[in-house]
Amino acid sequence: MRRFAIDRRTRATAVNSLRRSLCGGFSSFSYSHPYSSSANSAMGGPAAASSPSPSPSPSPSSSSMNGPASPVSLQNINPKVLKCEYAVRGPIVTHAQRLQEQLQTDPSSLPFEEILYCNIGNPQSLAQQPITFFREVLALCDHPSILDRQETHGLFSADAIDRAWKILEQIPGRATGAYSHSQGIKGLRDTIAAGIAERDGFPANSDDIFLTDGASPGVHMMMQLLLRSEKDGILCPIPQYPLYSASIALHGGTLVPYYLDEATGWGLEISEVKKQLEEAKSKGITVRALVVINPGNPTGQVLAEANQREIVEFCHKEGLVLLADEVYQENIYVDDKKFDSFKKISRSMGYGEEDIALVSFQSVSKGYYGECGKRGGYMEVTGFSRDVKEQIYKVASVNLCSNISGQILASLVMSPPKPGDESFESFTAERDGILSSLARRAKALEKAFNSLEGVTCNRAEGAMYLFPRLHLPAKAIKAAEALNVAPDAYYTHRLLDATGIVAVPGSGFGQVPGTWHVRYTILPQEDKIAAVVSKFTAFHEALIAEFRD
Amino acid sequence: MRRFAIDRRTRATAVNSLRRSLCGGFSSFSYSHPYSSSANSAMGGPAAASSPSPSPSPSPSSSSMNGPASPVSLQNINPKVLKCEYAVRGPIVTHAQRLQEQLQTDPSSLPFEEILYCNIGNPQSLAQQPITFFREVLALCDHPSILDRQETHGLFSADAIDRAWKILEQIPGRATGAYSHSQGIKGLRDTIAAGIAERDGFPANSDDIFLTDGASPGVHMMMQLLLRSEKDGILCPIPQYPLYSASIALHGGTLVPYYLDEATGWGLEISEVKKQLEEAKSKGITVRALVVINPGNPTGQVLAEANQREIVEFCHKEGLVLLADEVYQENIYVDDKKFDSFKKISRSMGYGEEDIALVSFQSVSKGYYGECGKRGGYMEVTGFSRDVKEQIYKVASVNLCSNISGQILASLVMSPPKPGDESFESFTAERDGILSSLARRAKALEKAFNSLEGVTCNRAEGAMYLFPRLHLPAKAIKAAEALNVAPDAYYTHRLLDATGIVAVPGSGFGQVPGTWHVRYTILPQEDKIAAVVSKFTAFHEALIAEFRD
Repeated sequence: MRRFAIDRRTRATAVNSLRRSLCGGFSSFSYSHPYSSSANSAMGGPAAASSPSPSPSPSPSSSSMNGPASPVSLQNINPKVLKCEYAVRGPIVTHAQRLQEQLQTDPSSLPFEEILYCNIGNPQSLAQQPITFFREVLALCDHPSILDRQETHGLFSADAIDRAWKILEQIPGRATGAYSHSQGIKGLRDTIAAGIAERDGFPANSDDIFLTDGASPGVHMMMQLLLRSEKDGILCPIPQYPLYSASIALHGGTLVPYYLDEATGWGLEISEVKKQLEEAKSKGITVRALVVINPGNPTGQVLAEANQREIVEFCHKEGLVLLADEVYQENIYVDDKKFDSFKKISRSMGYGEEDIALVSFQSVSKGYYGECGKRGGYMEVTGFSRDVKEQIYKVASVNLCSNISGQILASLVMSPPKPGDESFESFTAERDGILSSLARRAKALEKAFNSLEGVTCNRAEGAMYLFPRLHLPAKAIKAAEALNVAPDAYYTHRLLDATGIVAVPGSGFGQVPGTWHVRYTILPQEDKIAAVVSKFTAFHEALIAEFRD
Repeated sequence: MRRFAIDRRTRATAVNSLRRSLCGGFSSFSYSHPYSSSANSAMGGPAAASSPSPSPSPSPSSSSMNGPASPVSLQNINPKVLKCEYAVRGPIVTHAQRLQEQLQTDPSSLPFEEILYCNIGNPQSLAQQPITFFREVLALCDHPSILDRQETHGLFSADAIDRAWKILEQIPGRATGAYSHSQGIKGLRDTIAAGIAERDGFPANSDDIFLTDGASPGVHMMMQLLLRSEKDGILCPIPQYPLYSASIALHGGTLVPYYLDEATGWGLEISEVKKQLEEAKSKGITVRALVVINPGNPTGQVLAEANQREIVEFCHKEGLVLLADEVYQENIYVDDKKFDSFKKISRSMGYGEEDIALVSFQSVSKGYYGECGKRGGYMEVTGFSRDVKEQIYKVASVNLCSNISGQILASLVMSPPKPGDESFESFTAERDGILSSLARRAKALEKAFNSLEGVTCNRAEGAMYLFPRLHLPAKAIKAAEALNVAPDAYYTHRLLDATGIVAVPGSGFGQVPGTWHVRYTILPQEDKIAAVVSKFTAFHEALIAEFRD
């Protein structure tokens, strides 16, 4: 336990590194809502105080770095860029990278041996192995000239070779190095549409599929399409994945927050959504869309079917586009919940193309595959008129197309090996091994958080995160306030300095004012979970002891 | 020749397909400059007349497609999206795709056997083969578990295996499926910086490199950073690659055009740039940056060193960011020109970080590699203060990172096999074979265009395009006007209907008012060039005969 006790040296390091971060701008832990002071306070006290104003005043020293001739400075760049924040890669990560360099040059200078990145859903960075079949197919498509070589049969499974041939046949001229149709290769979109239809039991159309470099560019495209000015709003859950707040800020719209109810397992109450919609309308905001993240990020809940039906009904009635972030659709860890797409729900309610505008985002980065670096994904765009879809196509075409390997992988994810295929058994073992291990890790971490003094944690039903709430002693909150940082940012900073664990403060996602949280991924490899638990437990106990009232 | 004669049936088809395109919006062949009527007329007469107004009025039939409940229509989407145009994937391509489908179902219904896509620099779609060494390395990095298998040595070259190992060592945890640093993997950026330094003879810093999914996202990021409102302008060459006009429109700025001088081989006259800068200033526009495309797209010229020095001097003096599109740096086809990067030029003038803000864009899609589908590229950002670079990093981080295969490929392109490597000879043969063939094709097409009645064509010194000027008979121009389309759009449409050749009208790139051009890529495979020449020659002769005064 000695190494986790917070001695004078560690405290001094923590305070110094916090001061450094403050100079670099701790504001990244927050975002502001332009139209509503109550929304502003969603960030919670001190963090909101340090959030960037539309016209920030950087210190003269930094703006003069380039001498008087520099034509670009913080004073004259696009204020929307300044306003945009992205906590999961914010200052806590920059600080972690500094510590990592320090570990390399002077390993004994820190009270831990490695940095453990629990800040982001990046499974393979924490040693999750890729699905063999997927990688076989990708490699063969990259270098098709080995496809008919004898040695290839010794190195690759027969169905991977078959699949690579089939995919190459779907690519005009077999040219994996050519720009494709801007929505993605037609044959691959057909495969994906068939996968969606099989998943949902309702038809899907390849013309509705837009393949993208991960899910993020699809979200940006929709925000770009819908947001005309700050008078246009998007309803987003709070807490939310900060892609949404960042994208809304970059495209100059207004985030209209609705709060998830922590007391009911991060429940989505339609009455709350309706209240926020009315409040926004009363302030002159035209609300264009509702974002739902299911399974939830950072909150890990899985929506009940009845709740999804209410949401569909609400969007239908209010004329809102339903933006459904469904990238964690394979990540379900409890027996009493299952994933249903919003498309399936709306179709099963009898709502067709004419009744609801619905965009579903999917990614190759999550699920059991976790292929973040491949940047593959798609959005399924339904309920939009042909002329509006042509505008989406036009915006997609300005960037020509998404990367072909990512496109291929998206088709594989929606059409994995089937019974009878040579790889089926090994594929199933790999997939189930990853998912069942994730479920065990989620359970173990949830239990550990709930056993900490002053910490409560809803169960992780899905996705890759836990979002425990911190009930911090008043003295700890005062210590944070003295440094002008949010208490949860103070906590994660101290956690990093003491243990090497990188987690993201709740203020980066938004939370009910006066509450404090931390988002941890459940991704550390299973054999490290016990050590992670003992590290954060020791840290937490020492911190509580330090500040006990 | 019979099949190229424009008989009644073909003319009827052309007119009908033009009418169809008009209904779908021929406006895509133009863009408008918000601040200047003279700039507006850069599109030339009739096309400008059909360019979209900021508040277009789509036909009621299209907006009612989804019934009254549809929450999204052309009337309420972001007008910046409506305004954005991207000609190289515009209506001419949509029409080509329709004809391609028609060819499949009813081959005898059209006077050609195949569609030849000369609209876009997409070499591998026209059967250019990828560089073997690059693909070997990509395949091995995709599926590293075969790296130490015996069979692998029979399938892959030794230096590809070595390189894959080296690259994997540069990737934290060897995880090619993990998100990387948002600027790209540090080790790959080091390789790229070393490649730039070797190319230029001046140092390059990996912290200045931002790896991107092709060059386009880098251009978008810079536009997003620099453009605050329509009062901010970007100086762009006319003709220009429409990524620039599209990106400026999407980010709400103003394109400030400067004309390249066709009479001096698409010369870039500083006096013209200065004149346009002053005119913009007098209209209250703050000009933030100057775009230079070298080698030129769509114009194919290569700037002389003295000209580059003038440009650097101008940007330095006027406090403009120099946005240097250098994606065709390997595509030089004449002995009297060579490529020098703007960074090399500025450093050789003694200008350092403090003196000029310079962004160089590079892509894996062009050069001899032509790996468009891999979506790899980078921008080298120099002369920006640390705090502004942090803002660029933040925007990059919202999309997490560019795809890792594209990152690897960008490092390979900037560090290809060297003498002594097993692949060096075959690599050199592949590279030189492609580049010398491109030079021969450029020469053959240039000669053919110049031999046509009423066509003049500057030489293709570099890049992948020729941009011949059409001096059309008055009757042809009247025929186009009767359909309310630009004469060059009319010409390319008729060309497609008669020959299957897809080329882009000059009005998609901008041109001096009253002049008409067509952009053709030089990419059809060499054994097809003679047939292409005879097709467009016969078409052109028939068209001229049809409309001879």
